Amino acid sequence: MAELKGACIFGQSGGPTSVINASAAGVIQEALKQDCITHVYGAAHGIRGILEENFYDMSKEDPYELDLLKTTPSSALGSVRYKLKNADEDETDYKRLLEVFKKYNIRYFFYNGGNDSMDTCNKVSKYMQKVGYECRVMGVPKTIDNDLWGTDHCPGYGSAAKYVATSTMEVYHDARVYDKGMIIVLEIMGRNAGWLTAASAIAAYKGAGPDLIYLPEVPFDMDKFIEDASALYKKNGNVIVAVSEGIKDKNGKYISEYGSDLAKTKDAFGHAQLGGLASTLANILKEKTGAKVRAIEFSLLQRCAAHLGSLTDVNEAYLAGQMAVRYAVEGKTDYMVAFERAEGPEYKCNIKLVNLTDVANTEKKVPLEWIKKDGTGLTEDFIKYALPLIQGESRPPMEDGVPRFAKLKKVLATK
Amino acid sequence: MAELKGACIFGQSGGPTSVINASAAGVIQEALKQDCITHVYGAAHGIRGILEENFYDMSKEDPYELDLLKTTPSSALGSVRYKLKNADEDETDYKRLLEVFKKYNIRYFFYNGGNDSMDTCNKVSKYMQKVGYECRVMGVPKTIDNDLWGTDHCPGYGSAAKYVATSTMEVYHDARVYDKGMIIVLEIMGRNAGWLTAASAIAAYKGAGPDLIYLPEVPFDMDKFIEDASALYKKNGNVIVAVSEGIKDKNGKYISEYGSDLAKTKDAFGHAQLGGLASTLANILKEKTGAKVRAIEFSLLQRCAAHLGSLTDVNEAYLAGQMAVRYAVEGKTDYMVAFERAEGPEYKCNIKLVNLTDVANTEKKVPLEWIKKDGTGLTEDFIKYALPLIQGESRPPMEDGVPRFAKLKKVLATK
Repeated sequence: MAELKGACIFGQSGGPTSVINASAAGVIQEALKQDCITHVYGAAHGIRGILEENFYDMSKEDPYELDLLKTTPSSALGSVRYKLKNADEDETDYKRLLEVFKKYNIRYFFYNGGNDSMDTCNKVSKYMQKVGYECRVMGVPKTIDNDLWGTDHCPGYGSAAKYVATSTMEVYHDARVYDKGMIIVLEIMGRNAGWLTAASAIAAYKGAGPDLIYLPEVPFDMDKFIEDASALYKKNGNVIVAVSEGIKDKNGKYISEYGSDLAKTKDAFGHAQLGGLASTLANILKEKTGAKVRAIEFSLLQRCAAHLGSLTDVNEAYLAGQMAVRYAVEGKTDYMVAFERAEGPEYKCNIKLVNLTDVANTEKKVPLEWIKKDGTGLTEDFIKYALPLIQGESRPPMEDGVPRFAKLKKVLATK
Repeated sequence: MAELKGACIFGQSGGPTSVINASAAGVIQEALKQDCITHVYGAAHGIRGILEENFYDMSKEDPYELDLLKTTPSSALGSVRYKLKNADEDETDYKRLLEVFKKYNIRYFFYNGGNDSMDTCNKVSKYMQKVGYECRVMGVPKTIDNDLWGTDHCPGYGSAAKYVATSTMEVYHDARVYDKGMIIVLEIMGRNAGWLTAASAIAAYKGAGPDLIYLPEVPFDMDKFIEDASALYKKNGNVIVAVSEGIKDKNGKYISEYGSDLAKTKDAFGHAQLGGLASTLANILKEKTGAKVRAIEFSLLQRCAAHLGSLTDVNEAYLAGQMAVRYAVEGKTDYMVAFERAEGPEYKCNIKLVNLTDVANTEKKVPLEWIKKDGTGLTEDFIKYALPLIQGESRPPMEDGVPRFAKLKKVLATK
């Protein structure tokens, strides 16, 4: 493959994670080393930054600060949720992208994100091919939801899972100190796939986790839930329930919508159960059992807790970015970097490439055979899958007792 | 002072913290070393465990597990919220305590907790004095609220403050990734004293914290709040607000009660703002500004996050327990162990003793001169006070990627 000389641009897209900046460090540091890459640009707010010619010259950054990106949560360059129209319907954005690519001689495009971002990446790749503009396009996977197709797992998941497992264990201990028990409902992110909620099963595996775990992969039956939770409360005095924000009933209706419905009808539950899904469920259980209840949402905390990162995850996130650059320089294009778990007793993941066409917009859910028959927990197969992903400790350097995160200069690129 | 030979009993009381077990380790390990202490008992659920003759023989525990208590959150022995009546009104509980003390020859009583627990400790101390039963009574301070009188600060506060500061910084970074901004309202524990909410000012001091911080020490003015937050949103596009759960209006009414009032009147705000205080405020701001909003409650997480402990705090919690035993053995009684900050540029705290009578039920609030004039933040004096308390990293040993917490055998004491 002939050497392709030109600039590269990198963008972050979709919901941030605590390791998306580790992938940024991987891409940027590797790209800065490559002779054929003349400029390394970082797009402000992903694809929008390119459309608006708003991107940074990464060579202007202090190498120490770039290194700190490995332990800095959130999207240092800014993220975006922007869906490109299909090129055959509306070519406007694509023409503009091509214009910018030509102006800056951008020959490498790296895009870091989840399903929607891989769709963007795929569309850009196909358009550049169609118009015959030589540009190597590589997707770098990222999502705490762990729902990208074609990869064993996604960078971002391991750290979020470690946070969920650890915090669930801590809450478990806190929740049973009094002589009178209580019911706790934990709400965990994951609209369509239950991977992150499933991570609470690691706490249960360690003897300090939820009694009941509900994923969106299985229809949620409110009556059965109330029955199960009430029985456990009667038996043990303490109950912890973990629910994915995206659980739905058998008609496909989100349980999170039940709260406002209950309020509208002003029924026996009164108005108290309003708020998020966890509050709704906690208050229903309070009504039914008389128990003291508490609803806890891990909220943004679960995706930005860099102070409790999985070292395995951080290293893999970096590697994914680094390998995207190396493969592109070698001549590969139109792929997403993915992980393939090697056989054998020791955890080992190899990098492979998957076609962007295949990965764009395809969701990978928790396999039903890893969910217990009654839909209230995970099997050992899931634990075996998940445990290696949360191993090792990553945390930012601490300064004055709090994390020292990367501070970028963000020098705008000019032409 | 003549040597006093006999058993000791230790109890944990009130809301747990991530370091209350470090004080337990201090008391238990020190007591096990003392020749004059014949037995070391740990009360199940504090004073109730003594009343019910339900306590454990701590000498039966594995020393390694006792050591793990230093990094195990929550109350390993179980806590309690039980208020002793005044002895001159109802002597029942006291007679029972005396009976148990005599039966087991308990001559040392160590009680670990906050305001209410020091009240219990004080009452027990005074009763034993009155009836002439020789028993040395020492209080060991603990509370994330940091509101105990007579001590520079309380064990438990530093770790909770470190969690609040760190998590606030992480949320700050997560909250500003998109090109469209948002308003975040963080709700932090502290019903009457704003110490823990004030810890979010450390994040602001580090350039990644709340724009507005509201403590219960200052009456909360809803109109001014809406005005200030709206102006900041208009100016910056991103706003973070930190509120103490206990903020009240000028009539002393909790702002957390506004939510259900609004729902009852079914006014313009509709029902959406229900839930906790943070949701109420977030939804009011959404209504007024049209901003995307998110309410985050640190909930139990802020008091059980042993994975992010302050080493200074853990060491001091241990020391408080250890010194309580040493002082009691030396003949001291009727005191609470307290911290006194030494003068000088380097942080150093000495142990002192304060009378239980003085400390029982007295609350220490954030000094008004440490709160900014307009009531929306903290001064540098607070930062200077708080920073030393969050220094150093304490975390449990990790096993399989998650914390390994202490597992006690809890062998019941028998007579």
